[in-house]
Amino acid sequence: MNNIFSPQTIAVVGASKTQGKVGHDIFQNILYGGYTGTLYPVNPNASSVLSVKAFPSISAIPDQIDLAILIVPPDAALQVSREAVERKVKAMVIVSAGFREVGREGANIEKEIVDICVKAGIRIVGPNCLGIINTDPKVRLNASFARHMPDNGKIAFISQSGALCTAVLDFAAGRNIGFSKFVSTGNKSDVDEICLLKYLHEDPETEVILMYIEELKRAQEFIQIAKEITGGHKPTPILAIKSGRTEAGAKAASSHTGSIAGTEAVYDAIFQQSGIVRAS
Amino acid sequence: MNNIFSPQTIAVVGASKTQGKVGHDIFQNILYGGYTGTLYPVNPNASSVLSVKAFPSISAIPDQIDLAILIVPPDAALQVSREAVERKVKAMVIVSAGFREVGREGANIEKEIVDICVKAGIRIVGPNCLGIINTDPKVRLNASFARHMPDNGKIAFISQSGALCTAVLDFAAGRNIGFSKFVSTGNKSDVDEICLLKYLHEDPETEVILMYIEELKRAQEFIQIAKEITGGHKPTPILAIKSGRTEAGAKAASSHTGSIAGTEAVYDAIFQQSGIVRAS
Repeated sequence: MNNIFSPQTIAVVGASKTQGKVGHDIFQNILYGGYTGTLYPVNPNASSVLSVKAFPSISAIPDQIDLAILIVPPDAALQVSREAVERKVKAMVIVSAGFREVGREGANIEKEIVDICVKAGIRIVGPNCLGIINTDPKVRLNASFARHMPDNGKIAFISQSGALCTAVLDFAAGRNIGFSKFVSTGNKSDVDEICLLKYLHEDPETEVILMYIEELKRAQEFIQIAKEITGGHKPTPILAIKSGRTEAGAKAASSHTGSIAGTEAVYDAIFQQSGIVRAS
Repeated sequence: MNNIFSPQTIAVVGASKTQGKVGHDIFQNILYGGYTGTLYPVNPNASSVLSVKAFPSISAIPDQIDLAILIVPPDAALQVSREAVERKVKAMVIVSAGFREVGREGANIEKEIVDICVKAGIRIVGPNCLGIINTDPKVRLNASFARHMPDNGKIAFISQSGALCTAVLDFAAGRNIGFSKFVSTGNKSDVDEICLLKYLHEDPETEVILMYIEELKRAQEFIQIAKEITGGHKPTPILAIKSGRTEAGAKAASSHTGSIAGTEAVYDAIFQQSGIVRAS
């Protein structure tokens, strides 16, 4: 998990020269955000992206890559995953959409990528996510759509929704609310709330965990972990917003990640048993 | 001269991780200014500068370098010049001070660098200068101390003074005055007003040339070239501000580049014969 939030080297696969494209903006946000490690753009059709020498593939980079951020279509992402295994990349964030949330074909590619990567010990955030942020001055990683890095603070924010991320970051920016880490989980093909809760509980930079949830898998395990975190020896408070409270919300959540929102009563029970404060 | 203003690859030798240092700020201004080519930081003590992989020397960069920008002490600059010749670098901008303007030892190193480079066909801007700017959207090179690139326009600005550059760029920024190119000439060890006038006269992006002069060498040649430019077949107006009109100005000019300001009457005659409009 450290390779996701505190990598020393990053390759942005699909880094683009075209302003407004996701592959351009995320690369620019990392570069201009003052990331303290080394950043490599991967783009077979450009000699450089934002003045930084571009490489045609991950394999062409003469350096160990800790984190690969993928902004390429599903087929290409599968190909890059194979290369990542070969090159001993340590973690991946797949920003691109077009996987499980769009149907069976996408789901199959997603499963294949996870199978390949997990076997090789590569952790995956996403796909279909908005990226990650680590405001720690030692790292300063803004691998997200947010143009401005949020202030450094003690709140970690796990969000399943992209639009909500942006709204929360904008809201916080005007109110001097700082964040330690931010992660958009997307389809949660590998890294999910449970992994993140464990990691953030151990994180010395985090004192409160804020979650936006559309659906939970592994509910029993989730309850157990969350209970330990909120009520254990060194408790960290967890606040959650759960979408799908209204019928419209449930529908929106379903179309976003292809998941079923579950019933309200079930989630209320989960939060209660976990010691999680539910916000509306 | 094209390699100075429109290089495809740049190495910043002495690029620094420390904010506020010249080697940091110039590298940052090029990087964040949207330079369209490829930029390499050279720093033997850093693995990266502003997220870009750093190389210990020019020789270690696996790419042809068109322009090397030097922000290192004189002794190191001499060493880098030798390397630049070996690596077939095409042009250099030496920003660092400590050469002719500080005494004989500095002058000797400056002469040695020029001898080595000119023999190898490497043109030099500086030393003891504030860098160059090319606002052409195809290049977008802000290799200067100015945090913000001036607007694109048709005025080229040649300045021997650093402080004046900044003042003029600040003045222009608030008044929608655009520049095509900007160059701080410093000690004029190689590239001087004459080379620049010829180049800018041919430059399709430039329609007016603005000069700030502390002293001129090669006066006869200067008059001849300037006369052709201001009065020839395709005339380009030249405006000049000459320092040293007052005794205090003359003294300031002398301490800045170690040159003699000349008498007022001589410069008035030069400008008159050249067709240059002298501004006060």
